[in-house]
Amino acid sequence: MHAVSQYQEFLAEYLESKLEVKEPRNLYEPIHYILDLGGKRIRPVLTLMSAEIFGTSYKKALSAALAVEVFHNFSLVHDDIMDDAPLRRGSVTVHEKWDTNTAILSGDAMLILAYQHFEYYKPVIFRKLAKLFSRTALQVCEGQQMDVDFEVRQDVTIPEYMKMIEYKTAVLVAAAMKMGAIIAETPKKNGNLIYDFGLNLGLAFQLQDDYLDAFGDPKTFGKQLGGDIIENKKTYLYLKAIEFASESDKQKLTDLFSTQLEDNSAKITDVKEIFINSGSATAIQKAIEEYTFKAFETLEKMSIGDKKKQILRSFGENLMGRKV
Amino acid sequence: MHAVSQYQEFLAEYLESKLEVKEPRNLYEPIHYILDLGGKRIRPVLTLMSAEIFGTSYKKALSAALAVEVFHNFSLVHDDIMDDAPLRRGSVTVHEKWDTNTAILSGDAMLILAYQHFEYYKPVIFRKLAKLFSRTALQVCEGQQMDVDFEVRQDVTIPEYMKMIEYKTAVLVAAAMKMGAIIAETPKKNGNLIYDFGLNLGLAFQLQDDYLDAFGDPKTFGKQLGGDIIENKKTYLYLKAIEFASESDKQKLTDLFSTQLEDNSAKITDVKEIFINSGSATAIQKAIEEYTFKAFETLEKMSIGDKKKQILRSFGENLMGRKV
Repeated sequence: MHAVSQYQEFLAEYLESKLEVKEPRNLYEPIHYILDLGGKRIRPVLTLMSAEIFGTSYKKALSAALAVEVFHNFSLVHDDIMDDAPLRRGSVTVHEKWDTNTAILSGDAMLILAYQHFEYYKPVIFRKLAKLFSRTALQVCEGQQMDVDFEVRQDVTIPEYMKMIEYKTAVLVAAAMKMGAIIAETPKKNGNLIYDFGLNLGLAFQLQDDYLDAFGDPKTFGKQLGGDIIENKKTYLYLKAIEFASESDKQKLTDLFSTQLEDNSAKITDVKEIFINSGSATAIQKAIEEYTFKAFETLEKMSIGDKKKQILRSFGENLMGRKV
Repeated sequence: MHAVSQYQEFLAEYLESKLEVKEPRNLYEPIHYILDLGGKRIRPVLTLMSAEIFGTSYKKALSAALAVEVFHNFSLVHDDIMDDAPLRRGSVTVHEKWDTNTAILSGDAMLILAYQHFEYYKPVIFRKLAKLFSRTALQVCEGQQMDVDFEVRQDVTIPEYMKMIEYKTAVLVAAAMKMGAIIAETPKKNGNLIYDFGLNLGLAFQLQDDYLDAFGDPKTFGKQLGGDIIENKKTYLYLKAIEFASESDKQKLTDLFSTQLEDNSAKITDVKEIFINSGSATAIQKAIEEYTFKAFETLEKMSIGDKKKQILRSFGENLMGRKV
């Protein structure tokens, strides 16, 4: 086993070796651009880590890890078009740097390139990986569609919201880990358990992202604080507040979430107050703990050594520890 | 073996059985819409036909054929966004009927769904099909990018143009046929030969499309006559005319191709005259014949019965016979 930072280095090195300059340049340059922007590469790191947890070298998992990373970046390129986002990881988005047509086509090529990375594996493994990948990729599209649909709906429920973040975010974390298990050819039961571990950790992670958007430390939270509130996003915090708040606070929150302001500081303060007073802030913290606990529970059922369970637990604690 | 119209029916039936209503509806309805628009379904018919040519039932090839058709429709949905096309097969395009974001996301889902149709096959066949499919799909993206690049270039050569139509159109016809060979588990040599047959027939077909756009019979040509001329598209006819024409005609053609007019009838007449006088119209007819002949030549090298060679030859002749 290696440290997370080492896995990140292995990935960066492998990625570099695969980024050949190809024609037509207008198709491949945007792909290299977005992949070079970096990020924490949590998903592919999990693939490498999972492979070693189940007893095979991370080297055998590099191709699948890269498939996961290329797919994730494909989804960012296309989502950024849909959200009309100007920035990604502090840099100009692909559709802004080039144009929408380029972002569509380069994104399409990335989805295909992701599949091609599985060709490194022999038929039986290849089929398992590609099948899991297709199912996951389709769920990510479905999650994105739900997210779009929710924007214009006033009756989104908590179970619907949880399904949306499960599909949009958690299934890829889960699948990334299961790929490591498939490559290591560990018993199926382990593969399913690591999938559940990743799924619950992914859900906890996304809920924590919702929480930190309102209550995070501006020094450590990477994004703009209050971004979801500014955009009137119906996150878990919002939905729970609508459920719990007094009639007057509920009306106030609904009114605040129908405004588009120049200066949002008062709006953010007011909304956060309702999140706290309604009990929504407490409810999300409880949910985060529950999903994290669920993830750690599945670890116990896995047939791997205690030391390896501890590594996964520490990874989860570190990931969730960002709330401190 | 069956008649083309029978294969079309088998496909329609199989497609119908696979189009279940799924959630989220806003993701799947556009997919069903575009697949229901029909079209001649030449590519998937070729997959079924090829499977039977090499001695297996078309039934075993239905899944791969559907993958080809779903992919082809994916590329139409995304191309129509890029070309800002209002109509497809006489109906409103997906991005017009819904919106661009829907067309992007539903298109993405179709690309994934195409891969899923290969899951019907056992690992060794699955891997061969998916690998051929990925290579082909990437070439289609590259061809589309070349097409976009050519719009703003004044120095496109005939070999570059041929590479563009090979990637954008011919490789999918070729791959559709090779998939039939893979499913039938015929010797590799046959698979490569049927690929070459499809590739050359696909090139001949696309060149004929260029020819018919200018010189087709308005009664039988499905699209608007002169469409390429109106859009100043640098087709084979244009590039050859620029190569062959007198200095004055070359200047006239360049000038005509820098205009955007309300009434195009005079422009079309003038351009067609230059296509004829320069020898470009004759040159493209010769090229069509050469690629068709090349396709038929590869048939001779195939280890299949004469009757089956005749079936493929007749199919090619019928396909190309639309020029009459």
